[in-house]
Amino acid sequence: MQHETSSRTGTRTRGTGTIEPIPVPAAVTDPSSLGFAACEGGVCAAAGIRAVGIHAGFRAEATRKDLALVAADESCACAATFTKNRFCAAPVQVSRPRAASGRAQAIILNSGNANAATGDQGVACARASARIVAQELGCSEDDVLVASTGVIGVPLPMGPYETGVPAAAAALEHSPSAAHDAARAVMTTDTVPKEVSLAGPVACGPGGTDVTVHVGGFVKGSGMIQPDMATMLCVLSTDAPLTAAAAQAALSAAVGQTFNRVTVDSDTSTNDSCFLLATGAAGGGPIEVGSRGYDAVAGAIRCACENLARKIAADGEGATRLVTVDVVGAASEADADAVARSIANSPLVKTAIFGRDANWGRVAGAAGKCGVEFDQHDVDIDFLGIPVLRAGLPLPVDEAEMLRRFEAPEVSIVVSLGMGTAHARIWTCDLTHDYVTINGDYRT
Amino acid sequence: MQHETSSRTGTRTRGTGTIEPIPVPAAVTDPSSLGFAACEGGVCAAAGIRAVGIHAGFRAEATRKDLALVAADESCACAATFTKNRFCAAPVQVSRPRAASGRAQAIILNSGNANAATGDQGVACARASARIVAQELGCSEDDVLVASTGVIGVPLPMGPYETGVPAAAAALEHSPSAAHDAARAVMTTDTVPKEVSLAGPVACGPGGTDVTVHVGGFVKGSGMIQPDMATMLCVLSTDAPLTAAAAQAALSAAVGQTFNRVTVDSDTSTNDSCFLLATGAAGGGPIEVGSRGYDAVAGAIRCACENLARKIAADGEGATRLVTVDVVGAASEADADAVARSIANSPLVKTAIFGRDANWGRVAGAAGKCGVEFDQHDVDIDFLGIPVLRAGLPLPVDEAEMLRRFEAPEVSIVVSLGMGTAHARIWTCDLTHDYVTINGDYRT
Repeated sequence: MQHETSSRTGTRTRGTGTIEPIPVPAAVTDPSSLGFAACEGGVCAAAGIRAVGIHAGFRAEATRKDLALVAADESCACAATFTKNRFCAAPVQVSRPRAASGRAQAIILNSGNANAATGDQGVACARASARIVAQELGCSEDDVLVASTGVIGVPLPMGPYETGVPAAAAALEHSPSAAHDAARAVMTTDTVPKEVSLAGPVACGPGGTDVTVHVGGFVKGSGMIQPDMATMLCVLSTDAPLTAAAAQAALSAAVGQTFNRVTVDSDTSTNDSCFLLATGAAGGGPIEVGSRGYDAVAGAIRCACENLARKIAADGEGATRLVTVDVVGAASEADADAVARSIANSPLVKTAIFGRDANWGRVAGAAGKCGVEFDQHDVDIDFLGIPVLRAGLPLPVDEAEMLRRFEAPEVSIVVSLGMGTAHARIWTCDLTHDYVTINGDYRT
Repeated sequence: MQHETSSRTGTRTRGTGTIEPIPVPAAVTDPSSLGFAACEGGVCAAAGIRAVGIHAGFRAEATRKDLALVAADESCACAATFTKNRFCAAPVQVSRPRAASGRAQAIILNSGNANAATGDQGVACARASARIVAQELGCSEDDVLVASTGVIGVPLPMGPYETGVPAAAAALEHSPSAAHDAARAVMTTDTVPKEVSLAGPVACGPGGTDVTVHVGGFVKGSGMIQPDMATMLCVLSTDAPLTAAAAQAALSAAVGQTFNRVTVDSDTSTNDSCFLLATGAAGGGPIEVGSRGYDAVAGAIRCACENLARKIAADGEGATRLVTVDVVGAASEADADAVARSIANSPLVKTAIFGRDANWGRVAGAAGKCGVEFDQHDVDIDFLGIPVLRAGLPLPVDEAEMLRRFEAPEVSIVVSLGMGTAHARIWTCDLTHDYVTINGDYRT
């Protein structure tokens, strides 16, 4: 981008034109670029997927759903990613090897108890819950995946499974409302259910003809679960005829570019899990990595994940603003990512956003502290599309216009390092009194 | 330490004895172990050092001191460490090469304006301020070091130096009150001035006889300077006859073990500077690295830095508690440091402390997320000396006793990874509503 200040001296040599914002990729990936469009149905948008969400008794409040079941009509291709935290919960220990087989039929999820730090007893509980699901669905126990979220260090009771799973299995439906109930049943400090569904043509039919493919899902995650840890649980489904290898490749790529680029408070969980069931019920296929149609389906999965990832950041605990941090002009993507994360995790930057303050100084400080090499005299910063720093020196800013832009629900911070062409984007939210209240005041 | 749970199974096999806390080094280094004791005088404790703090006009409030001058009677050995932030302020650019010469006579510090992001003009200002000091003291301009803290991106006015430096030079005194005034003059969001002074015998006299050596100093730092960046400024002095190389070795080692182990909110500054003047006025010497007396002086310098570092954490913006995080049983010091920093920087852990909650789950999550290898089944955690987790499983805790211990101004978190013998300690504070208010509400 242009520098209207000569790069090494503080003396401004202002030209004729106005200072242009730093060019960055579009804030949101447009599914129409893949021929996909939003549709209804959430995780049930995909043919061959049924879901349900009920109150089974993990939570005290009888009005609050706490058990979700998502099931394919038959065993199908599956993929999954899990928390990298050294502390990992029983359901993760049970689901990881099962998902690695590349086949699954159902996912049972509960809220209210994370079944974490529960030892061998917890692992036995997770296995037993899957066994009950297998009995009800008439499938193999190994085809049932398990996920939990909630309080940790408390033994997971089996009772709610023994009564709840049969009730849930009987109520499984292929409907938008069933998908919605499942999304609700895994909510913790989330203030809203988070769902997505997309539909579009994929050339995987006979002779490369188009088949209409659906990608849908739900996610929960908002920061931390009082009084314990954060968890992100995500269930995605598609009726695309992906092979297990293609499903895993598409999911891993999507998660790396979306969920792994969200930070509410830099804390990660014992329970984070993201599942994808690919039923193939759309017909055609099979779709391997690289085969015709793969890019469209993988792109749609990424769009769905991005949509849900942004919803997590927007619903971050106590958040009033979704913040998108773009770092461009980096020497490498790793550098761009490190700088973007440093900015997105800076309590100073996050409180400044809460204060509706385009505080370039805090952004610069966060960029400069993370060990990535750059020259402060080459750095440009924009807030909400308004240039605030060029060549390391502050610009006069129209404060009224900046405050007006801060009214928007999404705040964009763009930093150019002037070192190369690499780009990275991280989504976060502001740090507010409500965050402290949610995570610090629950005792009082 | 003992495990009362068999390490691989969740089944508790409770023995006869009670569960012992994890053994850790003492929370505070005792200077008496070096033959040193607290004395009065702050930065003026050392013979040959004079100081002053006045209102020069960098700040609007005439009642608020904003200019500090610390001067040795003559050019002497000096050492310094500076911010590693890629964005570094003009005074750092000017002082770094001068301090590297190993000689200095005076340090001029101001609050109210950080002279950061001010381009070549800012560097010229920093040099000019030093020139005025040199004229007043009759020393070489190269023997004057400069430090600033306050708002960034605003040109530093020269006026306050032109009138303030002569007034300050005329008022220089070797007295505790002068040292106190200097400490006050650099305060920003600090709620209290932070000073230290120690005295003790050092065997650097003729034939290895003891000479009484003083180490003193002051620091400012509290997190962030509204509305911009954090800064830690520290001036230390000693009358020990350290060579420049010995002074730098002692200071670098001390800073690495103390100031670099404090985190209020993980953000670092453009202006961080730590200076040491060694006048040699105590007599004897010279003291080289490794020569007799070096360890005593270096130890006293570390004690002084630790004392000031703890005061920074305790005075962290909005803080209600000083938090000491000890990680023991690590495979390496680097691992211990990484885990301790991850815990100390976790907003979840910090808000839990504010909530007076011994939240082992959040500590475990922060420990597990930072990429350091360990087995969750080997991890023990204590809060305030009370065992809360053993072998990865929670223990029953006397909540009333825990809450009683939380009344203390200092909270201790100890984590044992069961991987080796390495230890690291990080000081931090809790994350409170006042932190958000200080850094997010200043606009409203």
